[in-house]
Parts: sequence; C-alpha cells; structure tokens
Amino acid sequence: MPYNRPKALLFDVFGTVVDWRSSIMRETRRAARRKGLSLDWGDFADAWRAGYRPAMDRVRRGELPWIKLDELHRVILDELVVRFRLRLSERAKRDLNAAWHRLSPWPDAVRGLTRLKQRYCIGTLSNGNVALLVDMARHAGLPWDLILSAELFQRYKPDPQVYHGAAELLGLLPREVMLVAAHKDDLAAARGCGLRTAFVMRPLEHGPKKPPELALDRWRLSSVDVFSLLRVRLTLLNCGQ
Amino acid sequence: MPYNRPKALLFDVFGTVVDWRSSIMRETRRAARRKGLSLDWGDFADAWRAGYRPAMDRVRRGELPWIKLDELHRVILDELVVRFRLRLSERAKRDLNAAWHRLSPWPDAVRGLTRLKQRYCIGTLSNGNVALLVDMARHAGLPWDLILSAELFQRYKPDPQVYHGAAELLGLLPREVMLVAAHKDDLAAARGCGLRTAFVMRPLEHGPKKPPELALDRWRLSSVDVFSLLRVRLTLLNCGQ
Repeated sequence: MPYNRPKALLFDVFGTVVDWRSSIMRETRRAARRKGLSLDWGDFADAWRAGYRPAMDRVRRGELPWIKLDELHRVILDELVVRFRLRLSERAKRDLNAAWHRLSPWPDAVRGLTRLKQRYCIGTLSNGNVALLVDMARHAGLPWDLILSAELFQRYKPDPQVYHGAAELLGLLPREVMLVAAHKDDLAAARGCGLRTAFVMRPLEHGPKKPPELALDRWRLSSVDVFSLLRVRLTLLNCGQ
Repeated sequence: MPYNRPKALLFDVFGTVVDWRSSIMRETRRAARRKGLSLDWGDFADAWRAGYRPAMDRVRRGELPWIKLDELHRVILDELVVRFRLRLSERAKRDLNAAWHRLSPWPDAVRGLTRLKQRYCIGTLSNGNVALLVDMARHAGLPWDLILSAELFQRYKPDPQVYHGAAELLGLLPREVMLVAAHKDDLAAARGCGLRTAFVMRPLEHGPKKPPELALDRWRLSSVDVFSLLRVRLTLLNCGQ
C-alpha cells in the first residue's frame, strides 16, 4: 500500500507535548512555600488533573453550559484549596491557576516539532482554551503553525465535532489529518472520525510510580497506525536528548 | 498619560502584511502564459480584488449564507475568466484560486513581525479563511503566534463580532488588543469595539498609479493612535530593507 503522508499533524498537548505533572508540582510548591506549607505536591497535581475529566464530562453531557478550561481549572482549584487547607489569597489562586499556561515541554518536544514543521503543517488540537495554548507556546517555544482548541467548537474532546471541525478549518479531508496523542480515548475518537493517528508514549506522564494510561502493547494498532507511529516517533526520537 | 502597552497585536493581512496585487499579477500571468494569453494583469488583479467587497457584503447583509473567502474568490474568478476570455481548465482555475494562499509579504513584514513577536503576542485578524492564512504563513515565513480569522466567527470584518470575538479568545479586554491595518474601515470598526489601533501606510497596495486607500494625513488620529502608530511604525521601519 503506498503511503500518502498526512498534510497536517495535530497534537494533543497536556501529557503529549508538555509535562503537566512536574510543572504543576513545581508551581504549587512555590506558591505554598511562601505560606510555609508543605505537602505531597504530586498528590496535589494529580488531584487537580483528576478533577478535570468529571468537570469536563458535565459540560459534555450538557449539565453545565460551555465553560473554558481556565474556568474549569479554577473551579477544581477552589475545591482543592479547601481540601488541602492551603489558604491562598485570591491573587495567589489566580496566579496558580495560570500555571497551566506555563507548563514545560517534554525534552524532545521543541526540537521534534521544529523538525516536523519543515514537512508538515503542525498545530494543537487540545481541550485547553486558546489563550492558554498561545501563552504556553510563547512560554515554551512551541513552534505551532496554528492553535486549534476545543474552545473554537465549544465542545470538548473526545466529542466528534472537535475532530471534524479541525479538518474543516484546515480545508482538509479527515484522512489528510493525523492526530498525535499519548491517550487512548483521544486516538480512538479521532480514528472514529476518519483521522489518522499516531501514538506517542509518555511513560512518566503520571509520575514515576504510576503506569502510563496507555502503553504500546495495549493499543491495537492497524498497519497505518504502526507506519505513522514509526515515522513520527522516529522523528521525535531523533530529536531526543 | 502613562502608556500601557497592548498585550496582543492583531494584523489585518491583505494589503497590510502581504502585497496581494503583485502576487496575483505574477500568478495570473504565469497561469495564462501557458495558454499564450496576454493582457493587463494589473487590471485583472484589481478586478479580482474589487469583486471581493460586494460579494462579502452580500454575506454580511445575510443575502448569502456564510461562505469562506476561498469560495468567494472562486465565484469572482469564474466571472472574470469569462469577462477576460481566459479559458482555463478546472484544474488551472483551482490552482489560480489558491494563489491567494501564496501571496508574498511586503519587504519589511517578516523582520518586523519577528521583532514585534519578542515583546507582543502577534496574530492575524483577517477575512481570509484559516487554511488560507496558515498556508500563507508557511509559504511566506510569517511567524504568527496564532491565526485568528473571520471564519472562526462566521462574520466578516468590519462586523463587530470579529473584533469582540478575537479579544474574547485571547482572554483579553478590548483595550489590551491592538489592530494593525492599512485600511480605514477596519481601523474605525476596531476602534468602535474598544480595541487600540495602529495604522501602517502601504502606498503601493493598489499599484504605482493609484493612491492608497488611506494616507496618514487623511486619518484623524487620537493621541493614543499617534503614540501606538509611532511605536509600531518605527519598529517596522527599523526592519525595512
């Protein structure tokens, strides 16, 4: 079968391109140190991230009207501040919530994306809102051609409107677009919409003690997946440090 | 009055950042040369551009449903091909219509934007559709932080929804956003929505024989305009070739 390469590579961002857990641990530790507080910051980061899916699912089911990820993060933070007894000022909470705009990339991300950009149009396809993704790109030096966000469609991944909408804005057929992600549900939904998919394994996404959500041998790969996986991963690996 | 600099600079694109007239002249001449045709390509480029505003205004008034700029350009091209007796194949027409994705930047644009990007978030705010703007940025090396397009709001400038929508997606107040443009109606509409404005004079937009739509002395500038004008123009001028 001849391999027709995709025209655009769209990347999931949290976990796939940036290391949210280490970044949030670092920022929370810094915010709390000023108050003399100490706790397991990994637990705090995990709890913040764990609140995201249920909150987002309430929006996806229509139980809440559309709200962007910055606001979802803030709702969860307000609960965690009480649960972890952090006692932060309004200003400190606002600043800490913006930590999601300042996440650090995985070590291979900037070099890998820079190389991929020479041959492909590269963009985000993230549940992060536009402002968050733009700030993050400027902070981390991520060389996106364009920022595509769930916010543009007022639907969160894995709702199909996000994948179809992205292909439509790019003026491409779904099969001309490849989603690159470290997560099973995202890849499966993109595939269900006719997009091509590439899996990037991020074994440390949930920290050194927990297994990644998805390992290579647990993801049923079609031949196209394997092929594209190899091409994208090899390019990324070539850029690894 | 202290000068609080804007957080994002959004640029009109056709005429302000890229030289549509020379680019379209060049591409049309090339497409027609294969057929042994010869005519005044400046007239052709002007006629193509002149068709844009009335077609777009029909969408703005609701006489036509939303259609993106690529499709508006194609409708106008089909009329011009008859009027100028060009007799192009379907494939040649499709390729020529895509010439709008390959416009060349003004000589100061890439260097000026690269410098401005160090201090400001920079993006497009154009009536061009997303795919057109992304292709153009890749072709011309325009270093946008983000692509904002009328297509995202299904409204064309100067409708206010475009300016308000852009500020909303950036998570900024209108006064924190500055529109940079070479055109009066765009600047006036942005200002009406509370955005700051900077005027860039492009005396050759409509060719060497015609006056620009807007010259500096015909645009009533407020003090903020003048100030921001000086800052942005000086930066652009410093990068001029």
